[in-house]
Amino acid sequence: MIKSRAAVAWGPGKPLSIEVVDVMPPQAGEVLIRVVASGVCHTDAFTLSGDDPEGNWPAILGHEGGGIVEQVGEGVTNLQVGDHVIPLYTPECGECKFCTSGKTNLCGQIRETQGKGLMPDGTTRFYKDGEPIYHYMGCSTFSEYTVLPEISLAKVNKSAPLEEVCLLGCGVTTGMGAVLNTAKVAKGDTVAIFGLGGIGLSAIIGATMAGAGRIIAIDVNERKFELAKKLGATDCINPKEYDKPIQEVIVELTDGGVDYSFECIGNVDVMRSALECCHKGWGESVIIGVAGAGQEISTRPFQLVTGRVWRGTAFGGVKGRTELPGIVDDYLAGKFKLDDFITHTMGLDDINTAFDLMHSGESIRSVIHFNK
Amino acid sequence: MIKSRAAVAWGPGKPLSIEVVDVMPPQAGEVLIRVVASGVCHTDAFTLSGDDPEGNWPAILGHEGGGIVEQVGEGVTNLQVGDHVIPLYTPECGECKFCTSGKTNLCGQIRETQGKGLMPDGTTRFYKDGEPIYHYMGCSTFSEYTVLPEISLAKVNKSAPLEEVCLLGCGVTTGMGAVLNTAKVAKGDTVAIFGLGGIGLSAIIGATMAGAGRIIAIDVNERKFELAKKLGATDCINPKEYDKPIQEVIVELTDGGVDYSFECIGNVDVMRSALECCHKGWGESVIIGVAGAGQEISTRPFQLVTGRVWRGTAFGGVKGRTELPGIVDDYLAGKFKLDDFITHTMGLDDINTAFDLMHSGESIRSVIHFNK
Repeated sequence: MIKSRAAVAWGPGKPLSIEVVDVMPPQAGEVLIRVVASGVCHTDAFTLSGDDPEGNWPAILGHEGGGIVEQVGEGVTNLQVGDHVIPLYTPECGECKFCTSGKTNLCGQIRETQGKGLMPDGTTRFYKDGEPIYHYMGCSTFSEYTVLPEISLAKVNKSAPLEEVCLLGCGVTTGMGAVLNTAKVAKGDTVAIFGLGGIGLSAIIGATMAGAGRIIAIDVNERKFELAKKLGATDCINPKEYDKPIQEVIVELTDGGVDYSFECIGNVDVMRSALECCHKGWGESVIIGVAGAGQEISTRPFQLVTGRVWRGTAFGGVKGRTELPGIVDDYLAGKFKLDDFITHTMGLDDINTAFDLMHSGESIRSVIHFNK
Repeated sequence: MIKSRAAVAWGPGKPLSIEVVDVMPPQAGEVLIRVVASGVCHTDAFTLSGDDPEGNWPAILGHEGGGIVEQVGEGVTNLQVGDHVIPLYTPECGECKFCTSGKTNLCGQIRETQGKGLMPDGTTRFYKDGEPIYHYMGCSTFSEYTVLPEISLAKVNKSAPLEEVCLLGCGVTTGMGAVLNTAKVAKGDTVAIFGLGGIGLSAIIGATMAGAGRIIAIDVNERKFELAKKLGATDCINPKEYDKPIQEVIVELTDGGVDYSFECIGNVDVMRSALECCHKGWGESVIIGVAGAGQEISTRPFQLVTGRVWRGTAFGGVKGRTELPGIVDDYLAGKFKLDDFITHTMGLDDINTAFDLMHSGESIRSVIHFNK
């Protein structure tokens, strides 16, 4: 058992509390890592707000990290002490029905226990004064030391700065992957990207890498437009500037609609707009954002019967252990940049400030540096 | 100008009236055909009911026909007198943005005028006592003589019986094409087909041709099950026999859901069931049925984010002039049968009986023979 600094969420709606917690040693098939840095993502805030019906309390949040292997449990064969790793909230066992299907990056191996905030054996590795604390998304990267199943860790190039590539553990991979893997945007295609947070901006990068001919970025916060344009957006649109539905504006602007659209917010009304701005006959809309519990999407079925396609994506369709190392290598090769995303860095003690900056729309991503 | 027997719909909700109408000669780019036979489809009934907001009155309905070219207008180069043809409510000009996209069978060339019940020049070819009668879906096959644009006619093998292959003008091609073209069902796949009318039964044929491993047929009318099984259904399910949502029944039955599902009714609640019975990670649902005006489909976006895909299809994704001749040849080669579908035949004078048989669920398809 070791001691670890951690930001504990004692309950919904409360600020995180910096504590020293006990971390149990990794069990069979598990790995103890030292987290070097962790991004703070909207999904953390969503769960902390209490709107996530699957929240377990108390918990250690955080799922966008970069770390170094400290200790491996029995039977761990693919990782050793000193390896650099990115935690995966979408694991890859390589053996289940999903992993072997060749059709999805979802993995069914530990889904049930992960959803309950537990390790695969049904227990937790975190304790405070003898009371258990739940894991979160199988990652809990807001603890300096955390335990994960081996199948939930991608081994990456040691020369990559963990303070930057931690963002590939969620937001950036999700946005880029949605464009490149899920939608498979092709050279010259027209795309619309709704919401210019970390996911939306990453989707712009993906669209730029794919050679999209026109990249329409949509947000009600015009402060996001400068960076969107820098990353490759050709048109920036504020729906508040128009007195008709934004899907109509985009259909007119593009002579019939876009080839692909991406919803990067989690707003069910925007999801509808994103579908309906697609071109008749072939336009495809990809839902990336996570909506609140119980919310539903709607449209007239005519939208689909006339050739539009509605789909979604999780973690950009990327298989973490197989594909994430290559994405890190692409980053190292300069194929895309991450520093534009990191607007703020801070130590663990200031983690609540990161949530404030996110809620006020001031930050793209805040990254917690554990050595600060 | 010639005289023609026709079933005229004078207004919504009224029985069709057998009349002798005046048919104007084909104008430039148009063709006069003699209709030999026409199926009676649910879409005709839908428009006749008044629920179709795009209905124009008075009109000559019918869109599932087989005929012979009687006269060609100026500039018609691909058809000549005596050719056997199937009218296409989804034309194929070969030149518009849609036809040249390689991504859809929809054609934009004459969409606006067709929707208004008019020929491309904005006028009609049907008159009764000097008053115009509207065309319907660009076909109007409930008239023994009808005029269509050249781009709305597929030239087919003369050895094919028009009294049977007329069904390829709508229902059978739609159902088979949804499975083979739109979904691209592969050998061994599991499929669910909701609604066992002409479209659903055709989808079963398509699934059988694709080599689907399991074909689950769903209907509340168990009288349809015998034919469904004969055509290849492996499981027939009546949702009324269960006290939980049919999607849950199917997910349990298939250890997680089906690879593909097809909605062949036009019921928005069933469309949701069809989506939600798909397998997480890769299941795709195809909407074929046409819902009533203003009705909407809904689901939780989580269904899509976890890998399901929602799409639709019109005329089975088939490009009429390019592909329908080959489907007729497949029929002649014995690759599928049509006689199971034709439960009733009758002369034009008895056309209202065909609607009655459809509404009572007694017929799969009634076919009007103009020479009866």
